[in-house]
Amino acid sequence: MLSAEEVEQIIYSGLPAVAGLGLKVEQAGERRSRLRQPFNENMIRPGGTLSGPTMMGLADAAMYAAILGALGRLEMAVTQNLNINFLRRPAQRDLLAECRIIRLGRRSVVLEVTLFSDGDEEPVAHVTGIYALP
Amino acid sequence: MLSAEEVEQIIYSGLPAVAGLGLKVEQAGERRSRLRQPFNENMIRPGGTLSGPTMMGLADAAMYAAILGALGRLEMAVTQNLNINFLRRPAQRDLLAECRIIRLGRRSVVLEVTLFSDGDEEPVAHVTGIYALP
Amino acid sequence: MLSAEEVEQIIYSGLPAVAGLGLKVEQAGERRSRLRQPFNENMIRPGGTLSGPTMMGLADAAMYAAILGALGRLEMAVTQNLNINFLRRPAQRDLLAECRIIRLGRRSVVLEVTLFSDGDEEPVAHVTGIYALP
Amino acid sequence: MLSAEEVEQIIYSGLPAVAGLGLKVEQAGERRSRLRQPFNENMIRPGGTLSGPTMMGLADAAMYAAILGALGRLEMAVTQNLNINFLRRPAQRDLLAECRIIRLGRRSVVLEVTLFSDGDEEPVAHVTGIYALP
Repeated sequence: MLSAEEVEQIIYSGLPAVAGLGLKVEQAGERRSRLRQPFNENMIRPGGTLSGPTMMGLADAAMYAAILGALGRLEMAVTQNLNINFLRRPAQRDLLAECRIIRLGRRSVVLEVTLFSDGDEEPVAHVTGIYALP
Repeated sequence: MLSAEEVEQIIYSGLPAVAGLGLKVEQAGERRSRLRQPFNENMIRPGGTLSGPTMMGLADAAMYAAILGALGRLEMAVTQNLNINFLRRPAQRDLLAECRIIRLGRRSVVLEVTLFSDGDEEPVAHVTGIYALP
Repeated sequence: MLSAEEVEQIIYSGLPAVAGLGLKVEQAGERRSRLRQPFNENMIRPGGTLSGPTMMGLADAAMYAAILGALGRLEMAVTQNLNINFLRRPAQRDLLAECRIIRLGRRSVVLEVTLFSDGDEEPVAHVTGIYALP
Repeated sequence: MLSAEEVEQIIYSGLPAVAGLGLKVEQAGERRSRLRQPFNENMIRPGGTLSGPTMMGLADAAMYAAILGALGRLEMAVTQNLNINFLRRPAQRDLLAECRIIRLGRRSVVLEVTLFSDGDEEPVAHVTGIYALP
């Protein structure tokens, strides 16, 4: 299986923009992943909340990381559906994503991601998604 | 009502990151909006497809633009739910979003966005979303 | 290709409960379908609105009808994802579903359904869904 | 707070069709609910799977039960959005719903429901939903 570092490198090579944001894969394996998006002034919108695309991008990366952790190096997994509920304004702190695989099928994977502001127990967003496997 | 340029300025002031991407509001009003995300090397991932967050960010901005076009300057409308189905790989061309308001309620707005690659009739993604009104 | 009557028979044989509700396939073909759920006292809840499951069931049947109309007799198409936004209380009248195929792929079909109360132009619910093909 | 029996009575009075199906509220409170849909021949479709509407109806009732358990008797809570991922064919056994409140807000509640076939640890469907509060 891949280490968190290897998963991070695969994600970086697949999404250079993500690398630019300094996203970290803290854990990937056992059908789960944990990612951290370090806080960055560019992610703020007036009013102080992080942008929706920042949250959606982190959730999408967390789903991909969980799949790589479960299935190993996999070229062509693609997001098929992503459904996000925004729950509260994130703080101006690192954003954490905790992802678990709900179902690992032959043709597709269904996943769930909960997003938190670092140090806060109440989630800021909840995401479910479907990845199609090659 | 606001002009497309005024709507664009409100979106830029609300999402500086979007301004950086050169997003254009081509039309906003009559419960619809049309936005263009000019093609940009940074949006590409290996394999040549645009990133999911690029598409989700454009769709979210298109929903906000349609609401501004319908309700005028509005500070605190926030995305409550966004559901996206990815349909095919976008081309390495401008990305267009065509948004319509499905229901304009007192407390929330339900919208639909279809994303296209410029010059291609087949959509690359379909989005529905809920915005909560202040 | 199948006629609306043939599509209705396939749906009835696949969902006897639907047959019991007297659901009618008014049109199926050209990547679209139109279904009618005749009004029925059992569908009412206090307050007079039709039940959510009635609406979700009609939308699911409309998606299946559109796929049968496009691909012909197909045993094992199954709903993979359904996302519904409830827009307003339906009237105590027939419920209509207008469905279109957004993308017809090799492995899956993405569809959109709008639900109306008969005689009313404003939709009562909007649905998107993914069907997995065998 | 309401007992599971009281919650069940409120749901029955709100959805007579559900009462007809013998749905049981096994637990409601502490931001969670657990419901059981006893197996019933009418729920089967050829191939032996339970119908989608049966699963969506049980999930919707479980969300309502969790809200009643958290907020007490509440007339006008209505489902605003429901997103369901179907994971595998349910067995011809009772269907169980385990629901938790993800966020309890002033104006809306976001919930998650996992559906199981009785005696099976692998879920058959996963649902997220938004209820609007009066």
